[in-house]
Amino acid sequence: MALVKLIEYADAPAEVRAVYDAIMQARGTDRVNNFWKALANDPALLRRTWDNVRQVMAPGALDPLVKEMVYVAVSATNNCEYCTHSHTAAARGKGMTDAMFLELMAVVGLANETNRLANGLRVPIDPQFLE
Amino acid sequence: MALVKLIEYADAPAEVRAVYDAIMQARGTDRVNNFWKALANDPALLRRTWDNVRQVMAPGALDPLVKEMVYVAVSATNNCEYCTHSHTAAARGKGMTDAMFLELMAVVGLANETNRLANGLRVPIDPQFLE
Amino acid sequence: MALVKLIEYADAPAEVRAVYDAIMQARGTDRVNNFWKALANDPALLRRTWDNVRQVMAPGALDPLVKEMVYVAVSATNNCEYCTHSHTAAARGKGMTDAMFLELMAVVGLANETNRLANGLRVPIDPQFLE
Amino acid sequence: MALVKLIEYADAPAEVRAVYDAIMQARGTDRVNNFWKALANDPALLRRTWDNVRQVMAPGALDPLVKEMVYVAVSATNNCEYCTHSHTAAARGKGMTDAMFLELMAVVGLANETNRLANGLRVPIDPQFLE
Amino acid sequence: MALVKLIEYADAPAEVRAVYDAIMQARGTDRVNNFWKALANDPALLRRTWDNVRQVMAPGALDPLVKEMVYVAVSATNNCEYCTHSHTAAARGKGMTDAMFLELMAVVGLANETNRLANGLRVPIDPQFLE
Amino acid sequence: MALVKLIEYADAPAEVRAVYDAIMQARGTDRVNNFWKALANDPALLRRTWDNVRQVMAPGALDPLVKEMVYVAVSATNNCEYCTHSHTAAARGKGMTDAMFLELMAVVGLANETNRLANGLRVPIDPQFLE
Repeated sequence: MALVKLIEYADAPAEVRAVYDAIMQARGTDRVNNFWKALANDPALLRRTWDNVRQVMAPGALDPLVKEMVYVAVSATNNCEYCTHSHTAAARGKGMTDAMFLELMAVVGLANETNRLANGLRVPIDPQFLE
Repeated sequence: MALVKLIEYADAPAEVRAVYDAIMQARGTDRVNNFWKALANDPALLRRTWDNVRQVMAPGALDPLVKEMVYVAVSATNNCEYCTHSHTAAARGKGMTDAMFLELMAVVGLANETNRLANGLRVPIDPQFLE
Repeated sequence: MALVKLIEYADAPAEVRAVYDAIMQARGTDRVNNFWKALANDPALLRRTWDNVRQVMAPGALDPLVKEMVYVAVSATNNCEYCTHSHTAAARGKGMTDAMFLELMAVVGLANETNRLANGLRVPIDPQFLE
Repeated sequence: MALVKLIEYADAPAEVRAVYDAIMQARGTDRVNNFWKALANDPALLRRTWDNVRQVMAPGALDPLVKEMVYVAVSATNNCEYCTHSHTAAARGKGMTDAMFLELMAVVGLANETNRLANGLRVPIDPQFLE
Repeated sequence: MALVKLIEYADAPAEVRAVYDAIMQARGTDRVNNFWKALANDPALLRRTWDNVRQVMAPGALDPLVKEMVYVAVSATNNCEYCTHSHTAAARGKGMTDAMFLELMAVVGLANETNRLANGLRVPIDPQFLE
Repeated sequence: MALVKLIEYADAPAEVRAVYDAIMQARGTDRVNNFWKALANDPALLRRTWDNVRQVMAPGALDPLVKEMVYVAVSATNNCEYCTHSHTAAARGKGMTDAMFLELMAVVGLANETNRLANGLRVPIDPQFLE
């Protein structure tokens, strides 16, 4: 159960509807996810977060599918159930296959393992990394 | 300061040298990073970890550069200083530019932000993600 | 499903009842939350935890509402679903409005983002912070 | 050692200088912290992050000191050394005393403890939190 | 809902069945947990993970029950609901009593608390720890 | 550099000295670690934390060495550098050998890996764990 109301389009003020319209247009759907409906309780937070997502996830030096997979990797590491579901769906929409998803999870798992080996043993950084 | 001795090649038993040789050959260098020298205190741990890294990071459904960048994303999320240094160096060796690295960090930062917005507001998962 | 039994008042030994009574009195209710009913399987853990909560959350240099909001911030960062629910309820009981809650989450989200930017880029600490 | 160059004002392009100017003006100093000098390698990331910080940390439903203390709480929970230093300094600049800082840390510590008790025992959420 | 299909024995290819057989034999049961059925979508990941678990959790310098309890401690710290359930069950199967489990959680809670006190106050490491 | 002064015995008020005396007596040393000297800025926090440590780490259903190793496991998972050093030293003082430490780290690493595999794939909990 959400800790705030989910704001539906019909009940939303104009500034919220403007963001919902932008989201639906960008994604080519007629639906807005619950994440945005929760943020809409604070229209400035909604607007700012959508602007951030739009800018950061746009094609650039990295392609959008790689960005979505990085998003999934972080969400799995932090255990965000909502984000793991929504960004896995987004990555699949951009072409991630089951084989890619499982390899992604294998890397995420391994990185989480060796992160703790390095931290737990307090391995000193090799001088060449600091040049 | 490491919590275990760093085992140099000259002091290593045969089973450790075999792994060091495999690492140096795979990477085309004559140096073994401190991470492996720390693990070498437990030859089975060293062997198993190297085998895991070799298998998981090999080309497959994802290309090796994407895998290295995912590794960096996880290491930055978990704050593993050693791993952030070593895998950023590895990713650069495989072609990651500064522009790619900064975009990667932008995605990592954003994902860490929205992970907490979704978790903190306890946003319910949209039904279409559960179909 | 809890991994231990939830101990109800009627089934509780005297030392557990004494803590339950103290909790209900301090909170002005006739109900004890599941968290305490789980801890009650180890009466010393129950007593110690309640004493800690009572002392740390008391008015002091910080006011109790600020403390509850910090508790929510940490719980959202760590993704403790139970704690996010219970401490958001407690903060609301002490005067947190929806507007305050959403601003709080915005700060939590931003801090989680910039934490990873600083860690991922390994930004060196400015000398003036170390004086 | 930073994983990217720190961009000094003298070497910065106009769009970066504009943000540096805004930061120095907002803070009433003639210095820009290393965090911003690292982000400046990606001027869009720098601009976006500064805009986010400026908007989120402005006075609103919560006062700026409370926001800084929440930032410190998250940074300590995530172990961001840079952010703990910089936001503790900022909080002190806004009036946080040693007594307030230590009480803040006591709440952060306690929340991290009870988060794991609730998660580890898998305490079920009380029905009244879900109404 | 899992993000991949759960592969049942009847539908599994020979290389997956071989791992399932090994798991069931090692554990003396005729059932394979969902964790393995999810990994089975990538037979190499399944095989590698099972080999790792088998080797790491075997009796050695530490006894298997201590290892299971450490696994529970990490899973509770990271908030892995699945792992907390499965490894608590495994630890109980190896002799962990309720009293041991609650003491374990008390240590986990306390460590999570003092970890943040040390990190948040940036306590310098005592020289004797670095000798 | 610590964010608070480290309080030396000579400069400490009576209530702090009483805790320092208790720590030194319990540990059979004439030195107090920096952790306690930092907490001493808030004598109530110092007293409360020491009482918690003393009670939780005492022999009980688990032996003190197992408790110290669990403490190390949590500290490595959370990346608390101070705590990893101090509790590894404490565990060694109670009999932890290098072989035990490395096996411990292997379990910590593996648990961190499989925690993310289970969370990232959203593996549903097997019904028998919920009975």
